[in-house]
Parts: sequence; C-alpha cells; structure tokens
Amino acid sequence: MANKQIPYKIYLDENEMPKAWYNLRADMKNKPAPLLNPQTHEPMTAQELSGVFCEELVKQELDTDTAYYPIPQEILDFYKMYRPAPLVRAYCLEKKLQTPAKIYYKFEGNNTSGSHKLNSAIAQAYYAKQQGLKGVTTETGAGQWGTALSMACAYLGLDCKVYMVKCSYEQKPYRREVMRTYGASVTPSPSMETEVGRRILAEHPGTNGSLGCAISEAVETAVKTECYRYVLGSVLNQVMLHQSVIGLETKAAMDKYGVKPDIIIGCAGGGSNLGGLIAPFMGEKLRGEADYRFIAVEPASCPSLTRGVYAYDYCDTGMVCPLAKMYTLGSGFIPSPSHAGGLRYHGMSSTLSQLYDDGLMEATSVAQTDVFAAAEAFARVEGILPAPESSHAIRVAIDEALRCKETGEEKTILFGLTGTGYFDMMSYEKFHDGKMSDYIPTDEELAAAVAKLPKVE
Amino acid sequence: MANKQIPYKIYLDENEMPKAWYNLRADMKNKPAPLLNPQTHEPMTAQELSGVFCEELVKQELDTDTAYYPIPQEILDFYKMYRPAPLVRAYCLEKKLQTPAKIYYKFEGNNTSGSHKLNSAIAQAYYAKQQGLKGVTTETGAGQWGTALSMACAYLGLDCKVYMVKCSYEQKPYRREVMRTYGASVTPSPSMETEVGRRILAEHPGTNGSLGCAISEAVETAVKTECYRYVLGSVLNQVMLHQSVIGLETKAAMDKYGVKPDIIIGCAGGGSNLGGLIAPFMGEKLRGEADYRFIAVEPASCPSLTRGVYAYDYCDTGMVCPLAKMYTLGSGFIPSPSHAGGLRYHGMSSTLSQLYDDGLMEATSVAQTDVFAAAEAFARVEGILPAPESSHAIRVAIDEALRCKETGEEKTILFGLTGTGYFDMMSYEKFHDGKMSDYIPTDEELAAAVAKLPKVE
Repeated sequence: MANKQIPYKIYLDENEMPKAWYNLRADMKNKPAPLLNPQTHEPMTAQELSGVFCEELVKQELDTDTAYYPIPQEILDFYKMYRPAPLVRAYCLEKKLQTPAKIYYKFEGNNTSGSHKLNSAIAQAYYAKQQGLKGVTTETGAGQWGTALSMACAYLGLDCKVYMVKCSYEQKPYRREVMRTYGASVTPSPSMETEVGRRILAEHPGTNGSLGCAISEAVETAVKTECYRYVLGSVLNQVMLHQSVIGLETKAAMDKYGVKPDIIIGCAGGGSNLGGLIAPFMGEKLRGEADYRFIAVEPASCPSLTRGVYAYDYCDTGMVCPLAKMYTLGSGFIPSPSHAGGLRYHGMSSTLSQLYDDGLMEATSVAQTDVFAAAEAFARVEGILPAPESSHAIRVAIDEALRCKETGEEKTILFGLTGTGYFDMMSYEKFHDGKMSDYIPTDEELAAAVAKLPKVE
Repeated sequence: MANKQIPYKIYLDENEMPKAWYNLRADMKNKPAPLLNPQTHEPMTAQELSGVFCEELVKQELDTDTAYYPIPQEILDFYKMYRPAPLVRAYCLEKKLQTPAKIYYKFEGNNTSGSHKLNSAIAQAYYAKQQGLKGVTTETGAGQWGTALSMACAYLGLDCKVYMVKCSYEQKPYRREVMRTYGASVTPSPSMETEVGRRILAEHPGTNGSLGCAISEAVETAVKTECYRYVLGSVLNQVMLHQSVIGLETKAAMDKYGVKPDIIIGCAGGGSNLGGLIAPFMGEKLRGEADYRFIAVEPASCPSLTRGVYAYDYCDTGMVCPLAKMYTLGSGFIPSPSHAGGLRYHGMSSTLSQLYDDGLMEATSVAQTDVFAAAEAFARVEGILPAPESSHAIRVAIDEALRCKETGEEKTILFGLTGTGYFDMMSYEKFHDGKMSDYIPTDEELAAAVAKLPKVE
C-alpha cells in the first residue's frame, strides 16, 4: 500500500466510514477535571445537568471510561449526505512552496454549514429527538454552529431556536437567511423574550450583544420551555466525542495509503475541531503505540493556551453555566474584534487543556494579517477559499513546510481545514484594503481578566 | 453491477475521470448554424475570430467534426483539485416525496466558484497561456463566471480583468472580494476605461450597467491590449465542449452502477450546464444507441426556448459580437429582475437551439416562487443550499418525481445541480419575506423585442 500513488483527494467509500465515535478520555491517565456546580462548587451530577442537556448527552459528557460509542444508524445516514469528507494531498501548495514536505489537509467545509460543526449538531439533535423533545435552543456568533444546528433540526423535524449575537445578526444577514431557509427561528440577542435579555437591555440600551449574553438567553429559554433543551457547539466533552469522526476518517484514509503524519495541526477556539482531528492519533500516543507532534493554533488576539491560566472558570460570560477547569483568559475577557469569530472564546475544552498541561500537545499563536496572507496564498493554489478560523492552521502548516525546505526534511504535515470563508468576505475585504489590525492584548489586560476568576478550593 | 448497492454519493476515482472532451456537434446531422460577421453577414472566419479569441479556442469553436478532444494534462491536474464531482443519489428527497422514482443529481458546486463554470474557465485560461498571452478579459453578472475565471488565472499566473455589471458590483461586494482574493482586477461597468463605457456614461449618467455593456467593454479592452484576449462563460460551442466533462463523468458513474436515466433535466440560461450534462447521452440518442427524455428548464421571466423565435441575433446587447442563430427573445429584451442572474440571457446556445428545433429535446418554463419553494424543500432534506439557477432543475425534477408517485412508475430521473446559493441569500430573504415577484413578460413585450432582430438573408 505504501507505494500506491496518492490521489489529489482521498475519499473513503461509504462502508469505510467510522461506525463509532472515539472517546479520547478513556485513554487519558490524567482525566479532564469535572464540571462544577457554580453555586456549591461540587461536581455536577447527571441529574443537575439533565435539566439543561438531553439525557444521553449528559451520559456522554460525564463518561471518561467508554472508549467507543457506536454511531446510531440515523446519524450515519445523515453523515452520508456530506461525508466522508475528503483528505486532500496539497500537491499544488507543495509545488508553490517548493518544499520537500508532504502536506495533507482534512477538508470539512463541503457542506452547507460550511464547517465541521454539522458532525455534532446532528448528534445532539438526534438525541433530543430520541428523548421525545420538541426543540432545542442555542446561541451563535459567527453563525456556523447556528447554521449546522438548523440543518440538523430541519432534517429531523425538530424546532430550532437560535439566539444570534445582535451585531452578527445585523452584519451577517446572509447567515441569518441560511438558518431561516432551514426553518430555524433566529432572534437577535439581547432580546425582550427572556428575563436576562430584558435585564441587559434595561442596563445597556444600545448594546450589540455578546456570545455570553446569547448563551444565557438560550439556556433560560431551554429551561423554561416544555420539552426543550439547550445544545452547545464546542468546548464540551460530548462535542469532542462526536467530532472524533474527523480524526477517525482521516486516520482511516491515511492508513489506506500507508501514510503517517509527523505533525498534526489544528486551529483552536473552543477545541471542537482540534480535539476531533487529533483524537485517534493522540489515543495512539497515550497508549504508547506511536508518536506525533500536535500543534494547537490560536489567534494572538485571544491566546487562551499560550497566555492564559489553567483554572476553574465560567464557560459563559453570563456565569449561568457550570464551572470548567481549562486554560482561560477569564470569562470577563473581551477579545478584540478579530475576524475569526469562531476562535473568539476565552477558554478551551477541558480535555485539550489537560493534554496541553501534561505536555502532550504544543500551542502557538499567530497574528491576523499573517493568517489572511496564508489564506490568500492557499486559495490561489488549492482553489478552496478558507474560513479565517481554518486559516490559522494553514499559516502554521505553511511555516512548518518552509522550515522543511530549509532543513531538507521530508516531513508529513497534516492539518484540519475546518471550513470555507464564503460568509467572511468582509474580513477579506479589510485585508485587501490594508485595513486589518493585529491587536494583541497587553499583559495588564490579561491580568485584569484573570484576577476575576471564581475562587475554587 | 446492476445489483450493487448505490451509495449516497458516487465519487469516481481520479483515474476514472474523462481524459477527453466530447464534441456533440460531431454526431449531429443538422449542425448548428455558423456564426456570422455582423457587418457582412458572411460566416465568421478563423482569422476574424482570432483577434478576439485564442487560436486553439477558435479551432474548437468552428470544429463540427472532431468527436473527441484530449484534455491537456495541466487541465486534468487542475480538474483533480475539485473533480470528480459527486453524482448523488437523492435518497432523502425520494423519501420525503414518497416517490417510487429514483432521483440522481450531478453536483457541480463543490468548488469556490460555486458552479460548473470552472470547467471551461481553466480550459480557456490554459489555451491563452499556451499562446503566450499575458491576460484575459471578461464580463460577469451574477459573478460565478468571473470567480471561476479568476481562480483559473491565479492558478496559471495569468492576468484577469473582469468587468462586473455595476449594480452587481455594488449589491454583491462579497463576490467581488472573492475575485480580488484570486488576484483579479474587477471594474464596475460601465467604466471610464473604455470608449464604449465613456460613451454610455455620457448618454446615461446614472446607469447601473448591463451584461451587454460589460461584454462590449471586455471585448474592447481585449482587442486593444497587447497579448490579451476575451473569454466567455457560456453560449459558445467551445464552452459546450469543455462542459461535456459534466456529462461524461455522470455517465461513467451511472454506467459503473448499471443505472440508466429515463429523464435528464437541466436549467438553461446560455446552455453551458445543460449542454455539458446531456452531451454524451444526446450523442447516444443521435447515434440511435439509446433513448432519453431531455428537459431544458428556463425561468418564465426569460423564456427563450419556450416563447422565443429561432433566428440570427446578436449575442450581446451592445451588438459588437458575431451573429448567432439561436432561440432568442431579441438582444434588446431586458429580462425583469429575476434572481437567477445566470439565466437572464436573451438567447440560447446554437447547438442546443438546433437540437430543440429538431425535436430532440423538450423545454419548459417555471415561475420564480415555485423555484424557491423547491430550493428550500431540497435544502432541508438534501443539505445542499442550491443556487437559484440550479433550483429550476430541482423544481422540474420534483414535479416529475411526484408524477411518478401518481402513476406508480419507477423512473430514473437525473438532474444537474450546477451550484450553490451562498451569494444569493438576498433572494432567499425576499422569498422568506413574501416579497418575491413572479413577473412574466407579455406577448406584446416579446413581440416588440423580436421585431428588432437583425435582417439576415
């Protein structure tokens, strides 16, 4: 197999698709720290969580032992609509860079949500349906998660209520229309529909909203509406579990052609894509079966791994959600208007945080204009117009390939191309017009946000 | 093979991709009528055409005999970046419609241009490069063709100058930014850069431009700039030739699984997609090897086949291009603001016009709101958000499938899903808000435009 000619795109057959998700936590010696009740600081119980989340998802959230979860047939059928996703050999990029490195990327943007988010959206919607619920609520910022959830709910005939951060709602009317096309109800947040929304609007009449506020509204609506639950697109362990399909497919495709990556690179916001991509490879590393270099790439404007602290913090700005132990900049940290909306999160998945703290993964941060320069260079040779989020991984993949050019090493580099940038052209425009800024928070700013972390004994 | 389980998506292997384009004209008894010199009304010679088009493309344009053109390796390599395109079995749509019909669609939207236009853009750019040219000019309305050409030129290192109809330039800034990302120069038309542009601006100071005007500017610039030529994304025979890759791939995928379509449906503007999709199937029909039902679908607002006349006409509103014999509404016909910009063309490919006139193909027209209703229903079950153009074919495919439900016939329906609607959300918004109109031109309007056709003996 090793000598087989590698095609430009490796598509697995449908019968080669993963049949089970992989729970990386099962192979971790140091398990990620449990979620804590924000009042008592005691570990959240299944019962406490099930008021907000579906029962099966609570089980997945708390289960650190079961290595594999069979994927239900209905989810597998949905996956077949847009999966297997291609693993692309970046021949054109290699040629352009004149590097001896071999570059591969797993492209998750070949679906209408424009990203990998659909992998978990359909799973969460499915379990809500299974439980006999009527609908789900969520928040969305950049809009990829909201779109993904709308698609999943349309397919299953479930109501979908999305609180969209007000400034996004106004600046990205097309994202909103995609969600409406899939039958979702989209409300600009803060709204007059919820207590927390009314309170915030009374306090800050002209506010443009925030993700934290939208989360609070979505949770409130889920808890107060009969047969509704709340769902979330990243950070949580259940999301990492579903997203493992990315890594499992990638590994199956590479194994089929006898290829082994040396370096695995992913952008990191809440961690859903990175966690999913690296899962089976990290599993091998944890079990001592193979070694890989993992690199998490975050924006210099929101550097939770590279400049944050490892501590218990609120998952949301509104402080209504459980506390999670993670690398965090503090839930009060407001990232500067970076254009990679999907990476503007103050914290990082507990699982990835633990792996990073254990020295099993590296992290680096990159400046925005460097990211867009990489995005444009990539688009011109590989054709695909990448999302700003994904382009963080492209930047570091190119840098690593150029390093190979200097040293002459024929390394195999794998990165996650999480999505497309069709709805991000306003950011590309700023880049083309030289109007893009590279704000990096000061040490003082970061210290001020971290000083407000909750005190957990 | 016939009993093999059909997957949701059939992806050919790279080595199963077509190695040659198929020239349908070679199998036509009644060849399409030749282009005429707009002054002399004599057939255009290769020499006359080569001032505007590349030499190899002129050869392809005029060649009605050679059945197969080998695809150059560099084009094949480019095709591998986004092809083979999937042939999708619409299991979810069939289930939703509860039809015994089997529905397949060839999806050409899995690339950044968002449509099939890239298939011909790379070919035309390649021959320009081969001829040692420096760049190419073109016009774009909706923007798919301009984007496709920008991508092809970026890949080959060729200059690309796009005249974008002014109202599109302003209403679709994101399309414009995609082209800029690929290094194209994009000018709103009419502009002060050309004689024709200056003349039109002097006569109509506040004009929003038109496709006809943009064509005239692009042709003028190509002719006046050293080492430049003009390229066009539809209507021409050369474009049909390149687009045959759609049909050849579709047929190879169907043959692999022993499937034979009964009905083949495509949307029809200038004819590039429809001509490409049906080419090899129509070839079989012409040679008496098989029979198929072909249906061209056009918007009721711009019904060239169903309500036009078969006559010589100008290809552009500016009347600078050669005359073509085709089904036409008259080059002076201004379609109402339909949202399927790619179908707002007054004429139809000469090749398709001849086939239609010979009774080898049917045509039907559909109203816009019916088209968007089909688009939305399709998106909700098949996931893909279709372009308004493509949704014309979806509408008729659904109607045919519902007819099968009534009669109980298990017909196999194939349609072309030419692209995605990410840049058309303004139209979807109008549809959601009930603000979409269904304008149909009156007989008087059509008669007035046809009265102005050029007199050709």
